[in-house]
Amino acid sequence: MTDTTEPRGAAHTSYDWRTPTALMTDHYELTMLQAALQAGTAHRRSRFELFTRRLGDGRRYGVLAGTGRVLEGLSRFRFDTAELDHLADTRVVDDATLDWLADFRFSGTITGYAEGEVFFPHSPVLQVESSFAEACVLETYLLSVLNYDSAVASAASRMTAVAGDRPCIEMGSRRTHEESAVAAARAAVVAGFASTSNLEATRRYGLATGGTAAHSFTLLHDSERAAFEAQVAALGADTTLLVDTYDVEQGVRTAVDVAGPALKNVRLDSGDLIGQAHAVRELLDTLGNTETGIMVTSDLDEYAIAHLRSAPVDAYGVGTRLVTGSGAPTASMVYKLVARQDDDGQWVDVAKAATGKISHGGLKDVARRKDARGRAVAEIIGVNRVPDADADDRPLLHDFVVDGQLLDGWTGPEAVTRAARRHRDSLAELPQTVGRLQAGEPAIPTIFQEA
Amino acid sequence: MTDTTEPRGAAHTSYDWRTPTALMTDHYELTMLQAALQAGTAHRRSRFELFTRRLGDGRRYGVLAGTGRVLEGLSRFRFDTAELDHLADTRVVDDATLDWLADFRFSGTITGYAEGEVFFPHSPVLQVESSFAEACVLETYLLSVLNYDSAVASAASRMTAVAGDRPCIEMGSRRTHEESAVAAARAAVVAGFASTSNLEATRRYGLATGGTAAHSFTLLHDSERAAFEAQVAALGADTTLLVDTYDVEQGVRTAVDVAGPALKNVRLDSGDLIGQAHAVRELLDTLGNTETGIMVTSDLDEYAIAHLRSAPVDAYGVGTRLVTGSGAPTASMVYKLVARQDDDGQWVDVAKAATGKISHGGLKDVARRKDARGRAVAEIIGVNRVPDADADDRPLLHDFVVDGQLLDGWTGPEAVTRAARRHRDSLAELPQTVGRLQAGEPAIPTIFQEA
Repeated sequence: MTDTTEPRGAAHTSYDWRTPTALMTDHYELTMLQAALQAGTAHRRSRFELFTRRLGDGRRYGVLAGTGRVLEGLSRFRFDTAELDHLADTRVVDDATLDWLADFRFSGTITGYAEGEVFFPHSPVLQVESSFAEACVLETYLLSVLNYDSAVASAASRMTAVAGDRPCIEMGSRRTHEESAVAAARAAVVAGFASTSNLEATRRYGLATGGTAAHSFTLLHDSERAAFEAQVAALGADTTLLVDTYDVEQGVRTAVDVAGPALKNVRLDSGDLIGQAHAVRELLDTLGNTETGIMVTSDLDEYAIAHLRSAPVDAYGVGTRLVTGSGAPTASMVYKLVARQDDDGQWVDVAKAATGKISHGGLKDVARRKDARGRAVAEIIGVNRVPDADADDRPLLHDFVVDGQLLDGWTGPEAVTRAARRHRDSLAELPQTVGRLQAGEPAIPTIFQEA
Repeated sequence: MTDTTEPRGAAHTSYDWRTPTALMTDHYELTMLQAALQAGTAHRRSRFELFTRRLGDGRRYGVLAGTGRVLEGLSRFRFDTAELDHLADTRVVDDATLDWLADFRFSGTITGYAEGEVFFPHSPVLQVESSFAEACVLETYLLSVLNYDSAVASAASRMTAVAGDRPCIEMGSRRTHEESAVAAARAAVVAGFASTSNLEATRRYGLATGGTAAHSFTLLHDSERAAFEAQVAALGADTTLLVDTYDVEQGVRTAVDVAGPALKNVRLDSGDLIGQAHAVRELLDTLGNTETGIMVTSDLDEYAIAHLRSAPVDAYGVGTRLVTGSGAPTASMVYKLVARQDDDGQWVDVAKAATGKISHGGLKDVARRKDARGRAVAEIIGVNRVPDADADDRPLLHDFVVDGQLLDGWTGPEAVTRAARRHRDSLAELPQTVGRLQAGEPAIPTIFQEA
């Protein structure tokens, strides 16, 4: 019932829309590098883990998104002449550090949860093993990508879950940074959105796009009828007419009169959406447009979508609340050193000891425990060990980069499609109570198993 | 008292970090264009205004940021071969529309509030006059930039206002999209932040950067002492040592022992910051480090900063809450057609008439009314007229682009510096009650004067 342009094959990956990522980092990553290089500790093999200590307020689960973007950006994480000149000019680091940065290529190993997977507090969604130096310079970039994309996916998943089989369409580009908008469209599709309005997201990731029309289009014309005639003349009846610029009832009558029985959708963008949806449905049916759908928009979030379940609505256009994480605009992930070698090559577990924040030293391995009926019951985190596993348990860690080599299948448009499928499967394993929107504890407990 | 690297002259503007912006737009902008081109209405001269209907919950004022970024991006708003091929492949629009897009250069006029200026509900912070077609294709991009940047600046201003003369340092890159992070650093400095941790923001906008060290740096080393020795050996005593990895008191003693009396700062990142700040101040003084400052970080927002006013703190590092707008992650700005010409060249005021959202048709002119003591008392919006002005009133609209020509002074690093100064002056005019953090009505009323 929605306007979508199906993607035509792969996205235009030959087109280089990508900016260098290496300076998208905090000053201190490079000064720590300098100090560690000078002290002779920068080479120490280190293990970092990226996780959140808590989900958004009352959320029952989080959804990992952005892993594909992280891996795509890794190849652009280079300190070329422009970056080195800038660092030299601003004297952020010394010459020895600049030399190290000039040669930087990530040569370590990255593992983690697959994109689209659900996660819980302390789930190690990304793990980096390399020299301290290499893992350190990546910190800010890894966190930026995963924190934003996962915040959007975590909100999106709640929306698509309550929308059921009614499609959600991502329309939030205008309410967030122009590049965030592209990432948000991608993350929304990972978490079940049917399509997006963002054209750049189609180019980069092959997402389906769709659109309707704005009030300005109606107001540009001498009458609502003239506007509808212009839209239908250009786009056919297989389009969505916005009917609430003047009077909704008259708008619907005019829309049907102009577009005929094949009109795809009318859109409501203001007022009492539930009451209007009922009235418009009845009117459309009376006029013979039984196949014309109703799309609603107007600051929808998961609660509004749930409320609208009782109304004859066929599609939801979701904007602001999606791209701002619906109250949780970041996934609050951190990146912590959990183990490092000493000068004898022995691994030493490490964790901050002062009060206030809980950290667990040591490398983690993780399985999602499932009962005999395939329902998830716990996140089992083995510390420096493989977790005790039942036959039904599902291991959660995958290799993405091994000794600097990116493995196939985790990037590009195909990775988005796979992540969306994976998200659907992962969510289906969770206790059905997660479909309720009430605040609560994480849907399953996180259980640590020490070695 | 903070680590900052002063920028060395202008940013590296010769380096092209800029991605094309033209597809960072909603599908419907281009299909509306197609329909209007076909209907012969696309050429109609149109006036759009960009404004918010409401401030963030309980906020007393908003801060405009992003205008410089908008104008910088305008020159990259081109449909080149890559964009046109993509649109052709995905069949978003027809060939006549592609031809129009290929020739697109914005030839209209853009006016608005100067960057850094405070705004209120219905303040027309940006105005675009051009053909409908030209104004339409820019919509999404304009809103994305101004909504995000203004959300950050509006939050940042409350933080710097309560911080007083203690510097705020932007450290939120890791908690938002990697490109938003750069924009957030810029917006924070517009609204009074002293510096940022984001290196790319320095490259693009010449902002001062600074940094400290992470817990991972301490944990990498065999002891806290070894870590501090490494940092001081590399960076000198003019640095900030993070003292809360193990035990704060011992951390401070070790820091002083290693760095001596010239140590610039210690940083506290967890626990009871107020209690610790008092204890650490006393200890530093006892040890003779009376000139060593205390920097605090750890999910600070304007309320935490206000609370910490009573503590001996010298600098605030602010991250998550800044880059996510401290509860208002978008400025909720919209872009509305307010007038357009008919086929006889007569201007017609337009506005959506259906219930639910208030819009005012007609072109606005604006002055900030000030009393004899120079204090702002109202936002006077003249509709199709110059507002009645007192001698002290300040006109708020400036020309940025005239007939397609960008005027000097509104872009680049210099624009950020000027915007920061303008923000300080603009804020100083407002009633002093805005310095309180309590929720309330907009600090001054918006008064419409009809023609």
